Formats: sequence, C-alpha cells, structure tokens
Amino acid sequence: MASEGKVITCKAAVAWEPNKPLVIEDVEVAPPQAGEVRVKILFTALCHTDAYTWSGKDPEGLFPCILGHEAAGIVESVGEGVTEVQPGDHVIPCYQAECRECKFCKSGKTNLCGKVRAATGVGVMMNDRKSRFSCCKIDPKAPLEKVCLLGCGVPTGLGAVWNTAKVEAGSTVAVFGLGTVGLAVAEGAKTAGASRIIGIDIDSNKFERAKNFGVTEFVNPKDHEKPIQQILVDLTDGGVDYSFECIGNVSVMRAALECCHKGWGTSVIVGVAASGQEISTRPFQLVTGRVWKGTAFGGFKSRSQVPWLVDKYMKKEIKVDEYITHNLTLGEINKAFDLLHEGGCLRCVLSVHT
Amino acid sequence: MASEGKVITCKAAVAWEPNKPLVIEDVEVAPPQAGEVRVKILFTALCHTDAYTWSGKDPEGLFPCILGHEAAGIVESVGEGVTEVQPGDHVIPCYQAECRECKFCKSGKTNLCGKVRAATGVGVMMNDRKSRFSCCKIDPKAPLEKVCLLGCGVPTGLGAVWNTAKVEAGSTVAVFGLGTVGLAVAEGAKTAGASRIIGIDIDSNKFERAKNFGVTEFVNPKDHEKPIQQILVDLTDGGVDYSFECIGNVSVMRAALECCHKGWGTSVIVGVAASGQEISTRPFQLVTGRVWKGTAFGGFKSRSQVPWLVDKYMKKEIKVDEYITHNLTLGEINKAFDLLHEGGCLRCVLSVHT
Ligand SMILES: NC(=O)c1ccc[n+]([C@@H]2O[C@H](COP(=O)([O-])OP(=O)(O)OC[C@H]3O[C@@H](n4cnc5c(N)ncnc54)[C@H](O)[C@@H]3O)[C@@H](O)[C@H]2O)c1
Ligand SMILES: NC(=O)c1ccc[n+]([C@@H]2O[C@H](COP(=O)([O-])OP(=O)(O)OC[C@H]3O[C@@H](n4cnc5c(N)ncnc54)[C@H](O)[C@@H]3O)[C@@H](O)[C@H]2O)c1
Ligand SMILES: [Zn+2]
Ligand SMILES: [Zn+2]
Ligand SMILES: [Zn+2]
Ligand SMILES: [Zn+2]
Repeated sequence: MASEGKVITCKAAVAWEPNKPLVIEDVEVAPPQAGEVRVKILFTALCHTDAYTWSGKDPEGLFPCILGHEAAGIVESVGEGVTEVQPGDHVIPCYQAECRECKFCKSGKTNLCGKVRAATGVGVMMNDRKSRFSCCKIDPKAPLEKVCLLGCGVPTGLGAVWNTAKVEAGSTVAVFGLGTVGLAVAEGAKTAGASRIIGIDIDSNKFERAKNFGVTEFVNPKDHEKPIQQILVDLTDGGVDYSFECIGNVSVMRAALECCHKGWGTSVIVGVAASGQEISTRPFQLVTGRVWKGTAFGGFKSRSQVPWLVDKYMKKEIKVDEYITHNLTLGEINKAFDLLHEGGCLRCVLSVHT
Repeated sequence: MASEGKVITCKAAVAWEPNKPLVIEDVEVAPPQAGEVRVKILFTALCHTDAYTWSGKDPEGLFPCILGHEAAGIVESVGEGVTEVQPGDHVIPCYQAECRECKFCKSGKTNLCGKVRAATGVGVMMNDRKSRFSCCKIDPKAPLEKVCLLGCGVPTGLGAVWNTAKVEAGSTVAVFGLGTVGLAVAEGAKTAGASRIIGIDIDSNKFERAKNFGVTEFVNPKDHEKPIQQILVDLTDGGVDYSFECIGNVSVMRAALECCHKGWGTSVIVGVAASGQEISTRPFQLVTGRVWKGTAFGGFKSRSQVPWLVDKYMKKEIKVDEYITHNLTLGEINKAFDLLHEGGCLRCVLSVHT
C-alpha cells in the first residue's frame, strides 16, 4: 500500500471542548508502531458513552478528542510483529483489549484485560505511551455499516444476559431503560427463553418498538405513586429472577436490585453512572439472597467473541439492522448527537468516507 | 410422657427490657398445637444477634422475650400431625424454617423458606399466630452441649464459603472479623483448599487463635494509614478472589467489596448491620466484575443439612469444641452476656438444667 509507513491525512470530527459542536478537520495519523494497527474507519455509530464524554462529565475524557467507538473499517497498514491482521482485513476496533497473556485474560473468569488499561485510561498508546483499541478481524462479507454496532451497545446487552447473569429458560426478567442496550438485553433474554420480560421506561413511546425485541409487558414508573421496585414485586409475586439497569441512574440501580426476588434474584448494572455517584441499599437485601453484579461489554472477549457475534448476525440469529434508526454522514455528526437525545433514535450510523 | 398435652412450667432467662439484666423466672409453656413441637432445651450458646436484640436496636426485637437461638435439646411432646420427630428425639431448633413445600424451598436456589416468616418476624406461632423455630432431628449420640453451636454461627461461616461463595482450591480469601463466624469462614476456606486466608481484625489478640482455624496472614487496620481495601489490594497483587464481612459494620462491608480482584472477586456479607444502616460503593466496582452477595445461615437448609453438619462433627471433619471458650449455667446468663463483649470469648455455652 502506497501509504504504508507514512504519515497520512484523514478527516475526523474533533471535539475541542466539552459540549461545543464538533469540527470536521484534517488530522495527521502516524504510521503504526510495533504491535499497532492503522484502520480506515468506514462507519461508526454513536453511543451514549460518546455523549457522556463529550459532555465533559467523564473524568477520563481528555480534550481535544476524536469520539466514536462503535465502528467498523478496513486495516490500512500494520506495525512490526503484527501477524493476526493484515492490510485489507475487515475489522471492528474494540475498546476492551484481549492480550491473551495477562492474568485477567488467562483467568477464564472475565473479559477484562489487564494489559493496556494503564495506557488507554489516559488516552495514549502502549508502546511509547502516545491506541486504545484492540482490533478483531471479522467476516469480510459482513456489511460494515451494520456490524459497527457490534463494537459496543448490542453485545453489551446480549452479553449481560448470556454471560453475566446467565438467565435460564422460564425466568422473569426486568429491563430498566429501553434504549439500544436495554433492547439488546430483552433480545438476549428472549433467546435465553425467559417467560416474562418486563420493560421499564419513563418514555412510553419506547414501548411499541420494544415488543419486537421480546419485551412482553411494560411499566412506566410515572404512572405509579409507589416506588417502581414495589410495583414490580407486586406484579411478579415476590420479585423478578433477573434485572438489568440500562440507563446509568444510581437510584434506578437500587430499584433494580430491590425488585429482585428474595433468595436468588440477581441484578446486573449495565448503565454507566456519572463519575462520583454511588449506589446504596440495605445490606439485608443481600443477606436475604439477592446478588448484585455489573458488566463491561457484556463479558464478551473482544478478539475471540466479536467475530462470533458477526457470524451470528450473518446467520440472522441476532438483530443488528433493527437498532439502526438513522443514517448520516460524518459531516452531519452534530445532528447525530442531537438525535441521541431524542426518544426515537436508537443508533445513528455515520458513514465516514462519502 | 406425663406432661403430654399439659401446660408445663420451665425456667427461663427473661429479658423484660432492653439492656436490663435478664431475670431467671418460671414460665408456663402451653402444649404444642397441630404441627408444633415442644422441646426441652438443655444447652444454648449466646450469639451476637442475641446481644443485638437485647440492646433494643433490633426493630424485630419485642420485649419481654426469651433469648438464645444456638440451642440443642430433646423433644418433650409433639402436636397433631407431627411425624418427623417424636418425644425423646435429639434436636437443634433452627431459626430458618424449611417447609419443603413453598416456592423458596422448592427452588433449589436458596435456604430461605417463605412459609413461616410472616409469623416469626413478629414473634408468634403460625397456627394461631401466637414460635419461630423449625426443629431438625440429629444423631442422639452427638453431645448436645457442643452441637448447639450448629444452630447458628458455625454453619453460617462454613456455609458462606461452601454454599454462597463456592470458594475453589487455590483461592485467596480475606476474612473481616475473627469472631466465631469469621473463624468458621476461615475453617471453611481452609477445607475448600484456599491458598491464602488473610484475617483482618482490629483486635490483634484474635490473631494467635485464628491460626488454628486456617488463617495464614493477619492485618490489623489500625496498623495502617491507608484504607484497608488498599492494603489488601497491594498485598495480593490486585485484590482477593473472595472476601467475607463477619462483623456487621457497613463501612467494612464496602472495604470487603473493594478489596476484591477486578474481573471476578466476590464479596459475601455475613455480619448483620444495625437496622436502617446502608451499604454503598461506586457502581464501577461492580461494572468491572466484582460481585456482591450475602448469606443467611450460610445457605444451609435447616432440616435437611444441620443433621449432616452434626455427622461431619462426629466424624471430626469440622470443629465445634474449639469455638467454645466458656461454659456457664443458665443462672449465670448475665455474666455470659458480659463475656460476649470481651475479646477472649468466642462462644459461651449455658447449661439449662443443672
Ligand atoms: N457496561 C457497558 O459496557 C456499557 C456499554 C455500552 C453502554 N453502556 C451504558 O448503558 C446505558 C444505556 O445506553 P443506551 O445507548 O441504551 O442509552 P439510551 O439513552 O438510548 O437508553 C436509555 C433509556 O432509559 C430511559 N430512562 C431514562 N431515565 C429513566 C428512568 N429514571 N427510569 C426508566 N427509564 C429511564 C430513557 O427513556 C431511554 O429509553 C448508558 O449508561 C451507557 O453509557 C454501558
Ligand atoms: N448472616 C447470618 O445468618 C448470621 C448468623 C450469625 C451471626 N451473624 C452475624 O455475624 C457477625 C459476627 O458474629 P460473631 O459471633 O463472629 O461476632 P464477634 O463479635 O465475635 O466477632 C466480630 C469480630 O470483628 C472484630 N471487629 C469489630 N470491628 C471491626 C473492624 N472495624 N474491623 C475489623 N474487625 C473488627 C471484633 O474485634 C471481633 O473479633 C455479627 O454481626 C452477627 O450478628 C450473621
Ligand atoms: Zn459505547
Ligand atoms: Zn490481557
Ligand atoms: Zn445467631
Ligand atoms: Zn418453605
């Protein structure tokens, strides 16, 4: 490739300051160093984590920055020692690394990797402390403008059910928040054979669409005077078997735990709360058998399992297209951020090279 | 039996008011009604839950009351329909019921039983809403003055490890609080094959004795400036695999969660906090893979599993004698309560009929 080993110029939507419109600019991208991969991003969706970083509330969010982490692209060139991918491969850059060598990767108990976090947490590359992503190679026939969603929100919801909670057939499930992540939880619970999937959202407009993702009943907390946990306990003869918080609100996290059935109910925190906020409950809730967990990227290992998700999508075993409500171009990115805050939008995919 | 069907008179140590010395009095005990069992209590140990109720801080503690729930005795007579036990059987009265019929008992997921709680929570019998215990029949050769301990503290610690956390061989374990419950956790962890068992207590006098129960290392939080969770993370290269809070202190509960290893560390709340107190942490602790649980009576089913624990004791597979530091008579009960607050005492067994 002509550009190999050279600095290249690319278009990027740069966030210079919190909450200020992003600016489309030419940025220089240095050639990949040892172990690094340079990827031509073709499509990216926006996720609420991008909006959170852009808001300035994320303590790890450094400015200026280039947002967008639900992406898909093609390998442009690789650094020394890179054997797993080569130029032309179709890839999804994943924010959870998987080095396969550290004690986390070898534990068999988690998808978190201990190797790159120290560097990516502060936004630099490992080698010279100047990437944050690990790349997983995928089926070249998979449509990149769709499978970019498999870089974050959809796997997070599916995996929260399959890997973290391990929902069994016949279970009763409560899903708090019916955005992309919550709908993916509902889809995951449906394929796991849950008998009741109760969707909870303060926006009743979310309810009709959620039926397609498996939600069987709806509750809008605003329609009730009693706390939502009490409503759910009453509705389910003592509480749900599994609950999932897919909003990022610490009081809803508490409600999600407390609506679980005594003796075995398990609650999984999926939403990301604003920095500094804390969850709380009476210890009696846990002493009487409820379990409180959380999940990052749904417990999926990036390099090992994202290609498997792509294959499941290709075999029509999981939805992806149904989460894409809007398509725009990179130049329209500020409009895409506005859409995120509108109830009707799940994911908006931006095409980068048009 | 001559007394069958009649009201009998027994000695009891009655707590008339919170924190006031108990009074040894004659009390009348009505004959057992349908499904009920009248037990001649021969020995009882005191547990910190008794002291908590006696202090007046337990919202479920009604006065006057007769304390003591780590007991053992002989069935005196039984009510209509009782077939599982008969007069003369040796029994341990258990505070967790096991009806084998309710959805809890049938779930296979919990030792809690849903049947009697509504009545026992307010201190009355189920039949006529005027007792709280379920009885399990045990090996008549087992020494009652020892196995009364299998009614509460020792099974709670062992079961927290075996049933609730399911500690695997090679694990690193932290035990917060080295009273009876904490030592039973250490013993459970040792038999499960844990490679490191770190005992944490603010009373360094507890350390020497704890070695016999399997504790391999000690940390006294008072010897350190840094928060105890940080000390443990440093000591274990990232945190422990399992931690157990055996004190009842909500800030220690937080520390116990936060000293767990990212990705998989599991913390079990065993201690009972004072009413109204809450636990809290940043949700990030759970999103990055830690699990927060609790246990009641170590997850053991009373009728099904306490006899099994008695058998393990008879085969010398679990300790019991080692937890008994003092022996007194019922008349010395106030002295026994004083002992509970002294560091040297684990369990004080009272002989009731002397
Ligand atoms: N743990 C992870 O690895 C991970 C990965 C991706 C996203 N996330 C997080 O998951 C969360 C959900 O993401 P999303 O893209 O689905 O967001 P979203 O904004 O599309 O969905 C949130 C939904 O919650 C509803 N809601 C808001 N407040 C509510 C309340 N009090 N009660 C009930 N419903 C309420 C909203 O109406 C909306 O439908 C975000 O916090 C995001 O940062 C976590
Ligand atoms: N969950 C259940 O089913 C169950 C059953 C029985 C007992 N319990 C509870 O378990 C707890 C322990 O019972 P026990 O009989 O072993 O009590 P104990 O008082 O003998 O032991 C508590 C230990 O904690 C130590 N300690 C106190 N504050 C500390 C701190 N801040 N940091 C470190 N160590 C500290 C004390 O020095 C003592 O050694 C109590 O809360 C009791 O009510 C729960
Ligand atoms: Zn995301
Ligand atoms: Zn790794
Ligand atoms: Zn007790
Ligand atoms: Zn029952």
